[in-house]
Amino acid sequence: MIRVGTRFTVSPPFAIPTPLILVLQAGADRAARDRIVRRVEELGFRASPVEGASPPVLCVLGADGRTDPSLFRALPGVERVIPLGKPYPLVSRESRRGDAAVAVRDLRIGAGSFVTIAGPCAVEDRETTFAIARAVRDAGAAVLRGGAFKPRSSPYAFRGLGEEGLRILAEAGGEFGLAVVTEVMEARDVGLVSRYADLLQVGSRNMQNYALLAEVGRSGKPVLLKRGMAATIEDLLLSAEHVAEAGGRDVILCERGVRGFDDATRNLLDLAAVPALKRLTPLPVIVDPSHATGRAELVAPMAKAAVCAGADGVMIEVHPAPDRAKSDGRQALLPEAFAALLRDLGPLVALEGKTLAEPSRVRA
Amino acid sequence: MIRVGTRFTVSPPFAIPTPLILVLQAGADRAARDRIVRRVEELGFRASPVEGASPPVLCVLGADGRTDPSLFRALPGVERVIPLGKPYPLVSRESRRGDAAVAVRDLRIGAGSFVTIAGPCAVEDRETTFAIARAVRDAGAAVLRGGAFKPRSSPYAFRGLGEEGLRILAEAGGEFGLAVVTEVMEARDVGLVSRYADLLQVGSRNMQNYALLAEVGRSGKPVLLKRGMAATIEDLLLSAEHVAEAGGRDVILCERGVRGFDDATRNLLDLAAVPALKRLTPLPVIVDPSHATGRAELVAPMAKAAVCAGADGVMIEVHPAPDRAKSDGRQALLPEAFAALLRDLGPLVALEGKTLAEPSRVRA
Amino acid sequence: MIRVGTRFTVSPPFAIPTPLILVLQAGADRAARDRIVRRVEELGFRASPVEGASPPVLCVLGADGRTDPSLFRALPGVERVIPLGKPYPLVSRESRRGDAAVAVRDLRIGAGSFVTIAGPCAVEDRETTFAIARAVRDAGAAVLRGGAFKPRSSPYAFRGLGEEGLRILAEAGGEFGLAVVTEVMEARDVGLVSRYADLLQVGSRNMQNYALLAEVGRSGKPVLLKRGMAATIEDLLLSAEHVAEAGGRDVILCERGVRGFDDATRNLLDLAAVPALKRLTPLPVIVDPSHATGRAELVAPMAKAAVCAGADGVMIEVHPAPDRAKSDGRQALLPEAFAALLRDLGPLVALEGKTLAEPSRVRA
Amino acid sequence: MIRVGTRFTVSPPFAIPTPLILVLQAGADRAARDRIVRRVEELGFRASPVEGASPPVLCVLGADGRTDPSLFRALPGVERVIPLGKPYPLVSRESRRGDAAVAVRDLRIGAGSFVTIAGPCAVEDRETTFAIARAVRDAGAAVLRGGAFKPRSSPYAFRGLGEEGLRILAEAGGEFGLAVVTEVMEARDVGLVSRYADLLQVGSRNMQNYALLAEVGRSGKPVLLKRGMAATIEDLLLSAEHVAEAGGRDVILCERGVRGFDDATRNLLDLAAVPALKRLTPLPVIVDPSHATGRAELVAPMAKAAVCAGADGVMIEVHPAPDRAKSDGRQALLPEAFAALLRDLGPLVALEGKTLAEPSRVRA
Repeated sequence: MIRVGTRFTVSPPFAIPTPLILVLQAGADRAARDRIVRRVEELGFRASPVEGASPPVLCVLGADGRTDPSLFRALPGVERVIPLGKPYPLVSRESRRGDAAVAVRDLRIGAGSFVTIAGPCAVEDRETTFAIARAVRDAGAAVLRGGAFKPRSSPYAFRGLGEEGLRILAEAGGEFGLAVVTEVMEARDVGLVSRYADLLQVGSRNMQNYALLAEVGRSGKPVLLKRGMAATIEDLLLSAEHVAEAGGRDVILCERGVRGFDDATRNLLDLAAVPALKRLTPLPVIVDPSHATGRAELVAPMAKAAVCAGADGVMIEVHPAPDRAKSDGRQALLPEAFAALLRDLGPLVALEGKTLAEPSRVRA
Repeated sequence: MIRVGTRFTVSPPFAIPTPLILVLQAGADRAARDRIVRRVEELGFRASPVEGASPPVLCVLGADGRTDPSLFRALPGVERVIPLGKPYPLVSRESRRGDAAVAVRDLRIGAGSFVTIAGPCAVEDRETTFAIARAVRDAGAAVLRGGAFKPRSSPYAFRGLGEEGLRILAEAGGEFGLAVVTEVMEARDVGLVSRYADLLQVGSRNMQNYALLAEVGRSGKPVLLKRGMAATIEDLLLSAEHVAEAGGRDVILCERGVRGFDDATRNLLDLAAVPALKRLTPLPVIVDPSHATGRAELVAPMAKAAVCAGADGVMIEVHPAPDRAKSDGRQALLPEAFAALLRDLGPLVALEGKTLAEPSRVRA
Repeated sequence: MIRVGTRFTVSPPFAIPTPLILVLQAGADRAARDRIVRRVEELGFRASPVEGASPPVLCVLGADGRTDPSLFRALPGVERVIPLGKPYPLVSRESRRGDAAVAVRDLRIGAGSFVTIAGPCAVEDRETTFAIARAVRDAGAAVLRGGAFKPRSSPYAFRGLGEEGLRILAEAGGEFGLAVVTEVMEARDVGLVSRYADLLQVGSRNMQNYALLAEVGRSGKPVLLKRGMAATIEDLLLSAEHVAEAGGRDVILCERGVRGFDDATRNLLDLAAVPALKRLTPLPVIVDPSHATGRAELVAPMAKAAVCAGADGVMIEVHPAPDRAKSDGRQALLPEAFAALLRDLGPLVALEGKTLAEPSRVRA
Repeated sequence: MIRVGTRFTVSPPFAIPTPLILVLQAGADRAARDRIVRRVEELGFRASPVEGASPPVLCVLGADGRTDPSLFRALPGVERVIPLGKPYPLVSRESRRGDAAVAVRDLRIGAGSFVTIAGPCAVEDRETTFAIARAVRDAGAAVLRGGAFKPRSSPYAFRGLGEEGLRILAEAGGEFGLAVVTEVMEARDVGLVSRYADLLQVGSRNMQNYALLAEVGRSGKPVLLKRGMAATIEDLLLSAEHVAEAGGRDVILCERGVRGFDDATRNLLDLAAVPALKRLTPLPVIVDPSHATGRAELVAPMAKAAVCAGADGVMIEVHPAPDRAKSDGRQALLPEAFAALLRDLGPLVALEGKTLAEPSRVRA
């Protein structure tokens, strides 16, 4: 346990040593430089100066990606600190060769296996949920989504059916041979949700809820981690590192749009984050075009684009009567539109050299 | 209880009826319009059409700010839904005349009373915390801040002393006659933190952690709610509404910078949010220039600017040895710089027609 | 000429009448409402009130998308103005059925015809330019790009060869049967650049340089208009409207990334803008993944994604020795990587039901 | 002339030598490193390696802030280039001690002299302009603003009176002893506008219109350069460098809000940019709270905040009948509100240790 009260992290073998660069202030004199060197050494590192550089430049050796750069930022005479290591060793490509596949029940997601997750925004009732589950299974989806605990900006909006919703979702998944994913909104619900879900979703608003990240990491379940609306790619990977550090190595990342300045779309889908992420991490990366765009008519083009950008899956909202959906009906596809989309995705997945993740079960 | 499983909100007298405007698609024919009108009526509202408008425009009457606009967004033939009501009735100016003052122990914050909150980013040890408490009290601060549970992007960074930190903070506050504020990071810690803190802080990363908002709302303690990095002003007020709806009417809002595109400052301080917020809500609004800028040399100008923008207080990080601080030393003021800043703030507060919130107690 | 000194726009038949909605302040009394109605009528419009709405709502009838909403915004008692019309009638779908194809020399771009534009960031010398032109033609590109006037953030960076660069580019295009596109940076250069280029590019930094927009609109040449870094989709269409209003109806829009908060990529490619734009305008929309990502390794996935998002073309930087390129080498593809990419794009273009725009030559 | 066709910049004595840091790829072997070193030397610099660093780190010595980092970015084996020099030597604090004052007619702006610029958004007619000029002079403004050439998003909006507007503005300035500032929108208008204006404004949309920057730089007139909506602080200073490099050393910078994600205000006023800029440049920095907020009721608090943030002036829109203004009436102050604001600014300017810039002329 290196959590509380510890200033300096121990260095298990997995983190590759990488320096930090300290750029000193132009006016830093020899005394200031000596003080900085002494402080660097006091912290357990070595300082290697660059010959001839003005402003003076020092490399801090013996550090790794987990070393907190803020230890150096406030040293008098230091202008700038540039860490070179990846601060998320457990989820970086440095730690694992090749791509990681995450197992969700009998499915493999990632490493060449493309997954389609689909279902309603919220679980509303048994009948609708079962109808949607049947429709998305028939169309070729492998995982059923549906919210039982819904994060809503307004306290007066529909917030989900709670455990009853979990039960309906799990039964629908069982009935139609689909794995199920649902959002867990707080640490103390992780046990409850884990009893029903095959994959635990952490939503955008909770991407930096560290108590929740640790708890899902300890749960033994695979985790679907959605990017926060103001999160950089590095922030997202650091949140995945929180899950991994707590024991949850099976993390699927999800790009779902960041906050943009144009309300032509609900969010700004950062599709280039997909190939950018895949260069940094072996973890699977999926895309949620429904929340990203907020408009049903943009879902299909962006789902197709996601495949070609290298995504390992898509997550799509489907509802048989969007005008009666209790939340976000505006972005849901009708079952027939969803089926048409999946027919379009097939050849694209094949062109990417991937195969569709499919439940192994015999279907009714 | 209107939480789970309820589609339509009841309408207690506090929410002022306000319509939503539905703009129909240009091609919407009479049949489509009739269907929309019927659905509006089925939902318990009335539809008033605009004579002569093309595309057709309908007003939904009988609604109020809490009515979920997404109920109408997916209706076939509806192009756009424009709600006119404030979706946060409890914390809006509609609900209360004048400005609200929030009581924190023996202090009044807001409604003409300006508060200075100061202290270390994190509580590191007893000696440093007491030294800082003494210094900020001597300079004129009224509330001591300090993190015992620290949200950190990296799981390897210092995350606070936990309950031991709470205890040190509370003792330092008691010793120097300062109220104390500290962050609570998850719902299940609210009881623990409430035993030590006079004011519960919900941090930026948790601004939309609704379980936490509800729990602090139920705690009976006043709440300091920081704006999320991608949160609009309306999002912030909706989060305050979550707290209020759970019973916590004493909420202080805090602007601390949003995510910007320029790394010249850590965040982008949206100071115009202060007067914009104060037109919408009676709640006090304070500013955190330390986190907003991330650079000690920008803290004083932005603290002064905050006073003149109409803020009801500032929250400032102070550390006697920023180069040895366990987090964010780069943005901490030295005690003497903090004292100089408070001397500068005095006349500005007076020019704003406000007085400094001061502890009533005799100081040791 | 309706430019200077004219307050109210005349209404040629092309602009479809559409109302503006005025939401009045809650407290607006009868006298205030009457004043607003009189002012609306004085401006030549009619005011239709919504029965029963509180706050009062008025529709301004007789307006169209070109009516300046700011005429109403400052009227005492008006809280909010919501224009319903498209402010860009000439380039909106309202004005033309189906998709527009833009002719560039013997090429058709748009309306089912997909174009590949490729070449160096800047024209550096004759030999390199010819080598690139040959390579991109052999790979299947139809248009040669290359900057002769380069907008550079630093005044000390390479800013292009000027007219000599135009001449080299035009000769290379002629030699290899490629149409050529190049950027024009100011109104007084439009004549010069038009003598060499088949397609005039207006860059991101100049998207709201209205003098330039008018001049390229008057030139008789087709125009490639790149989205500004902080431009909404509506801003982009308004800039296209400036070109169209000056006479230039043949405009190709280009998404090339907006300013984002994450420096993992140079810009934030807003790929959902492609289908969003195509619902609003008949004009062709292409994508520039080179400038959007700034990283060669992300160009191919985003070019493929662009095809599937519905783009009518891509614009890609190619250089045989990126390490010696005079600008932006980091984002250029090697000729062989470009050829491989085009082989990948072929089947995707076909799946979209489009054909590759190809020069009709033989040119020798 | 170092403009066109020149790869490497000459180094006049004003630019302080500063290194660039090259971080190599982790796998870069000796041969790759040797190639990089050779290329660095071929470009006329020296390479100094950091002992013991992995990944390898090299410092490029002999460079300065004007050295184009993209020369190194595409070298095989280079992962990252970190330039340490300021790329804007002419306008950086490195080049000049203390603060610069810019002379505008008989006024000094900056270096302790605080200026108030005020007037209508657009010059509409002689009578209104003269009335506004008298009112703002009586209230204490020193410079009259007013647009004769207006950049408008819509080609159908009022675009100014052109030269007639310039004439009216200049006459009003003359009549009331006010210097005048007005926007010039394209390079070929610089001569015309210079005949009437004392200070040439380059607007946000043209901040990176380099032809215009060069032309105003050559004009001999002082320049008011507004920050672009997506411009970083460094981008703004680079644009000022364009002006300076063309000969215009008298540049006043203007913060006027950047593009934000919250439409509660028109733009997002980045007030912390003021002290951040003043640490980097000796040039005066003023603030335009009218365009930044777009709402008259937010102008006064943000103008006051600007003073305390360290601004050297404010620019404010004033109109006697905002409801009849031809553009942006929503953000204009009434003359009496403007006078009240100036009474409030006085003590704040004094607290900052500055004096109000005042025309030396005897006023009528």
